[in-house]
Amino acid sequence: MRPKLTPIVERLPPVFPFVGPETFERQSGIPIRARLGANESGFGPSPKVIKAIRADASAVWKYCDPSNYELKAAIAAFLGLKPENIAIGEGIDGLQHLICRLFLNPGDKVLTSLGGYPAFNYHVDGCGAVLLKVPYAGPHEDLGGLLDSVRRNRPRIVYLCNPDNPMGTWWPAADIVSFIESVPEDIMIVLDEAYGETAPRGTMPPVDLLRSNLFRTRTFSKVYGLAGIRCGYAIADAETVGYLERIRNHYGVNRLAQVAGLAALADQDWLKQVVGWNAAARDRIHAIAANNGLKSIPSGANFVAIDAGRDGAFALRVLKALSARGVFIRKPSAPGLDHHIRVSTGPDPELDIFAEALPKALADATA
Amino acid sequence: MRPKLTPIVERLPPVFPFVGPETFERQSGIPIRARLGANESGFGPSPKVIKAIRADASAVWKYCDPSNYELKAAIAAFLGLKPENIAIGEGIDGLQHLICRLFLNPGDKVLTSLGGYPAFNYHVDGCGAVLLKVPYAGPHEDLGGLLDSVRRNRPRIVYLCNPDNPMGTWWPAADIVSFIESVPEDIMIVLDEAYGETAPRGTMPPVDLLRSNLFRTRTFSKVYGLAGIRCGYAIADAETVGYLERIRNHYGVNRLAQVAGLAALADQDWLKQVVGWNAAARDRIHAIAANNGLKSIPSGANFVAIDAGRDGAFALRVLKALSARGVFIRKPSAPGLDHHIRVSTGPDPELDIFAEALPKALADATA
Repeated sequence: MRPKLTPIVERLPPVFPFVGPETFERQSGIPIRARLGANESGFGPSPKVIKAIRADASAVWKYCDPSNYELKAAIAAFLGLKPENIAIGEGIDGLQHLICRLFLNPGDKVLTSLGGYPAFNYHVDGCGAVLLKVPYAGPHEDLGGLLDSVRRNRPRIVYLCNPDNPMGTWWPAADIVSFIESVPEDIMIVLDEAYGETAPRGTMPPVDLLRSNLFRTRTFSKVYGLAGIRCGYAIADAETVGYLERIRNHYGVNRLAQVAGLAALADQDWLKQVVGWNAAARDRIHAIAANNGLKSIPSGANFVAIDAGRDGAFALRVLKALSARGVFIRKPSAPGLDHHIRVSTGPDPELDIFAEALPKALADATA
Repeated sequence: MRPKLTPIVERLPPVFPFVGPETFERQSGIPIRARLGANESGFGPSPKVIKAIRADASAVWKYCDPSNYELKAAIAAFLGLKPENIAIGEGIDGLQHLICRLFLNPGDKVLTSLGGYPAFNYHVDGCGAVLLKVPYAGPHEDLGGLLDSVRRNRPRIVYLCNPDNPMGTWWPAADIVSFIESVPEDIMIVLDEAYGETAPRGTMPPVDLLRSNLFRTRTFSKVYGLAGIRCGYAIADAETVGYLERIRNHYGVNRLAQVAGLAALADQDWLKQVVGWNAAARDRIHAIAANNGLKSIPSGANFVAIDAGRDGAFALRVLKALSARGVFIRKPSAPGLDHHIRVSTGPDPELDIFAEALPKALADATA
């Protein structure tokens, strides 16, 4: 007789929230020539960050500071907040896992959008809670629909991503603030701002909007170019951050992540440059789509959703045909969104490969 | 009204399993000259590891492989096991957190030794389970006492560390195997082998001792010199590893940790060298203790427990007096062990500082 799993784990399906491009590569034998599927920043991190990592490499025999003191202080100073309003985690995923564990009992309800971030859903499942999903309104998360469901279902947590992944759409700050103010204060709002830096001005609510039921997550993984370093942060009221301290893995964020985060934050010139390159790359992806007779969705993020022009099965065939040509992208699979493919921004050489492969992939998928 | 915490979290005390030396340094203003408190390896990682980290630094814009495929395969090949018997985590702490979440319901019992690894206890608390603690038998974890308690209390998990932390003592493999065989098969055994590489031959049970109720944890943090990289692994049966996949943070282990782990494993010559240096440093710590009229405990680990010669309060004063002289060490606080201080091995220059500071600290503590 094996040790008995908890009832929560016993019911969990063997789900992988994301299959990495390395796995596709290994299974297909086709090398990836354009890595445009994970919303990474192919523009890379600041050269100063790379230098900082290299300089600290010989010090990795030392544990990281479990309090993340310096990085917390730097983020707080950068945002004009206090360190006690900042939590650091192993990427946004790590932080979303923790917020779920603070508030979710088995059977509790959690509200998100149908097609929203799968890793958040994965951690909700891991707590044995029940996901309720509101369909998108067109390519937008449906704020009104979410609010209706909040009122009807009284979930423990409601999740919102702005700008949204996987569609790239956004709501202006005023709408987000009004949403936040309409959610009853005993319901935790997880506002995922992973793509905030690339959004148009006026998209992010004021950074000092601190509430006891608001948990905003941000990351060095996207436009800072540090997806592999696993470092995200949350902005929340001090009491929420204090409770996270009681359940987190205190040595979870590695030393080089702390070093890289500090250096990345310090080089805002690089960030501005990347934000510019990202906007140009988005324009180029829109143009590539248009050249192929396809519509694309205006994006505030570091990717563009392209309507592949037919149904979900067709879009999946396009994705597979791109994959066969060494172009790694992803696509939404939720009904209503699944006829899109999602292409991350990146440097021109990778977009060249995409531009060349797309018409062929469309032809393959049509055949 | 704030969002309601789960009953588990509501009851958690604001506990930090370890306060980092950085915090002591910041609070006291005294720079640490000898970092001998966290069982890190001051001998550092292999130069080949440092090189590998530096070489990959510019690729950190890419996510890590969420399946840890290469590192899993390399560890499995190194151990002569299959990849499905290996789990990778954010240090042993990360893995122990996961094993707790697989098996612990609120109120479940977990058995460990009084004075055993605090981070394991922290994660048990985080699941709302109840810790039972068996006192050490002298400086040894009490295998017989643990087994008695297993039979009487039927805990969900029993934790054992061999060689032991914080005392450095060890049981030969035969005793560990006999312990494992005596534990009913519905009770999970967490066998922490963080210090296995520095133990005398014959301390570690055969690596292919796979059982559905055995979870062995190992790490790159100790003798591999990679504490700051946060990479540990577990050896377990494939089914247990499979369940871990359903709750872990798939992008928790960072890319440079994967790279460093691979390079560290490949350089076994470096490891042998460090194991030798570690043994010499242990001898030197024993000699320093003897020179001060103190007894020390034979150690199979990368630290030595020294009996400070009086009670726990005195040992604490010795620790503080060392700290005031820039020597960072730690000490057990459990009754029966608390009259010891624990000194990690390290290169001679740091042990010189310890050797010079110890008699003064003893005098300070006596005064």
